[in-house]
Formats: sequence, structure tokens, C-alpha cells
Amino acid sequence: DDGRHPATAPRLPHHHPQEIMHAIRSDLSEFKCGLAHLFLHHTSASLTLNENYDPDVQTDTETFLSRIVPEGPSAPWRHTIEGSDDMPAHIKSSMFGCALTIPITDGRLNMGTWQGIWLCEHRDYATPRTIVITLSGI
Amino acid sequence: DDGRHPATAPRLPHHHPQEIMHAIRSDLSEFKCGLAHLFLHHTSASLTLNENYDPDVQTDTETFLSRIVPEGPSAPWRHTIEGSDDMPAHIKSSMFGCALTIPITDGRLNMGTWQGIWLCEHRDYATPRTIVITLSGI
Amino acid sequence: DDGRHPATAPRLPHHHPQEIMHAIRSDLSEFKCGLAHLFLHHTSASLTLNENYDPDVQTDTETFLSRIVPEGPSAPWRHTIEGSDDMPAHIKSSMFGCALTIPITDGRLNMGTWQGIWLCEHRDYATPRTIVITLSGI
Repeated sequence: DDGRHPATAPRLPHHHPQEIMHAIRSDLSEFKCGLAHLFLHHTSASLTLNENYDPDVQTDTETFLSRIVPEGPSAPWRHTIEGSDDMPAHIKSSMFGCALTIPITDGRLNMGTWQGIWLCEHRDYATPRTIVITLSGI
Repeated sequence: DDGRHPATAPRLPHHHPQEIMHAIRSDLSEFKCGLAHLFLHHTSASLTLNENYDPDVQTDTETFLSRIVPEGPSAPWRHTIEGSDDMPAHIKSSMFGCALTIPITDGRLNMGTWQGIWLCEHRDYATPRTIVITLSGI
Repeated sequence: DDGRHPATAPRLPHHHPQEIMHAIRSDLSEFKCGLAHLFLHHTSASLTLNENYDPDVQTDTETFLSRIVPEGPSAPWRHTIEGSDDMPAHIKSSMFGCALTIPITDGRLNMGTWQGIWLCEHRDYATPRTIVITLSGI
């Protein structure tokens, strides 16, 4: 499978975008052992794996990112033409990365009990986000 | 290969967990060219590649992470029910990531001279950690 | 393909190293659907994907990294034997990572419009850098 799957979310890490899971469920079932590669087509959002249970973990992660990457008039950025939240978003995207590779076992993503896929939107006003998913294996 | 390999370590990045290397050595030998994917089943630890020689690099990395992610009563986290080291561990896990993909050449991991696999334990009291290893190639 | 491709760059993130693109263009054309894995053989440089248009984004990213990872006599590092820029480089390497996996579609890297491959040199005086590229797919 190699399709484009749009997803949107407000500024915040969000776990387990339902669109992603729904899009690949049937394709996953064809693999006994393999890898699922998720690739975000953007430089101001990111994909990461983290806690899928308590939504405070997502809020706290946003708190951390906003503290560590300065924003607004006092920030030292030269790249400001697209808004004060743009350069911080680029930095956060490289910090967390825009791709994930997850093992497939017996037709399902083989993740830990508490692991969920987070789509992290780092812009204030999100546009639709495209994820390319590539499945491989036997 | 797609097995679960337990590993434990105190809070600190540790290079080259011997359990990992031992578990995959014979399987690796079957591949002339390929990829080894290591996937940690947890959200409060991480996998990264870094210097495998001077253990001070691991200590300094821990110093950096502890400075950059605040911990304790004055930290701004809402997710504190599992202890003051838990939310910082989640953040560090997303910063470094929980997976590695390493090329295989002629039956061995094709890494640089100074590169070692680090299992980074971000909790104070580690529980056993599970790594799923998937090898592919020819 | 699994070859070593040398590349050099001064301290700064640089997008789209031409050597990389040139090295794999003809090999890529053999794949209708697959994955390209780029793996840097070093612990004081990194690979990331980010904005490929405005070079200020690279400058601002360097500004961020230099602010967040202290350097020089007042920095807390024990690992200083290779120079004051060495331990910060190790940390930045783990923050951004030393590997990328990018989907291949119809013989080309399937990236977003604004995504470019950045080779981030974190040492002041760069030595040649080796990247191992592994292509897989159908």
C-alpha cells in the first residue's frame, strides 16, 4: 500500500488519528511479519509514538515544546514571514521527526500496551496533513 | 526474525546492550544486504545511536536531558500520578525516539566506528524493557 | 544499492546535499514502490527533513540548537577532550537522529513540496561524512 491519507488536528499532539488506523487496517491483515512506515509530507508537524491513555501527556508535551522553542516578537528567528508560529514549528518537526516505522506481527501493528501514534500539529491553524503509508513484509 | 528481547538498565543512556547484539547475531549472518529495525515497546525509554567509547558521553547526555526537561514539584506537568520522573520520561522518549533502523552489510550491522546502540532508560526505577527486532533484506 | 557516499559541509544544517541525490537517482528509478533508507556513519552530525526553500530556516535551526545545548567553558560536560563543540554535537545528533527513511513512488523520493534532506554538521571543523543508502521495494 502506498496511499495518501489526509488528516487534520489543532495545535497539539494527538494520539492514534483514527483516519490512519482505519486506512491501513485491511492492508495490515495481509502481513504476518513486516514493517509499516508512516511518512508525513510536512515540515511544521511531526509524528511520534507516546502514551495513548492520559490526554494530559499530550498537553504536557505541548507545554514542553512551547517552553523550549521560543515564539513571538522576542524570539531570535529570521524566518518569520509565515507567522510567529512557523519557525518554532519547523524546529519541533525536526525534534520529533516526521516518520515512524512500526513492526507488523500477525496482521497488526506490534506496539506496546501504552504506545499510540501521535500526529503533532505545530502550527496554530492547521491545514490538512498528508501521510504516505508504506507496508512491507511477508 | 521478529522476537521480543527483554532488557533492563538503570536511568541513563547505555550503549550496546549485550542482550540485543547476542539475540540477533546469528540471524544477521543470513543477510548480505538489508535493514535491522529495533523497536522499543515503551513510552518512557528510548533508543538512539551515539558514541560507544567514552562513557562520559552517556553521563553528559543524561545531564543534558535532566536540565532541559524540568522535574519535581516546580515542573509544570499535569501528568504526575505515576511519579515526578514519569512525564519527563515521556518527553525524552519522543525527543530521541523509540526505534532505530540500521543497515546490514555482509551479515553485520553497518555502523560507523564510533556508533553504538544506546538503550536510554528515562525512569528512576526501570522495569524490564521489550525490543521487537525485525530483519529484512537479501 | 548499499554504497558509501562521502559528503562534507560546514557547521550548519544544509538541505538536499547534491551528492546524495546524484548518487541514488538512477537506482531510485528501478522502484515503483519502496523505501529509501539514509544512514549517517557518525555521532556528531545528523540527518533530518525540513524546509528546502528559505535558507533562514537552516540558520534559525542552528541558532536554536546552539542555544539549547550549552557550549564552552561554562558548559557542564565531562567529555571535552575532543574540543568544546564535540559533546554538544553528540547531543544534537541524538536529538535529530542520524537516519531517514523516505518512501519511493514511481522511481522518485515521495516527499512533500517543501521537504528537503538536511545533512546537519554539528562540529566546527567538519571531516568528510559517510552516508550508507539502502533502497528496497518493488
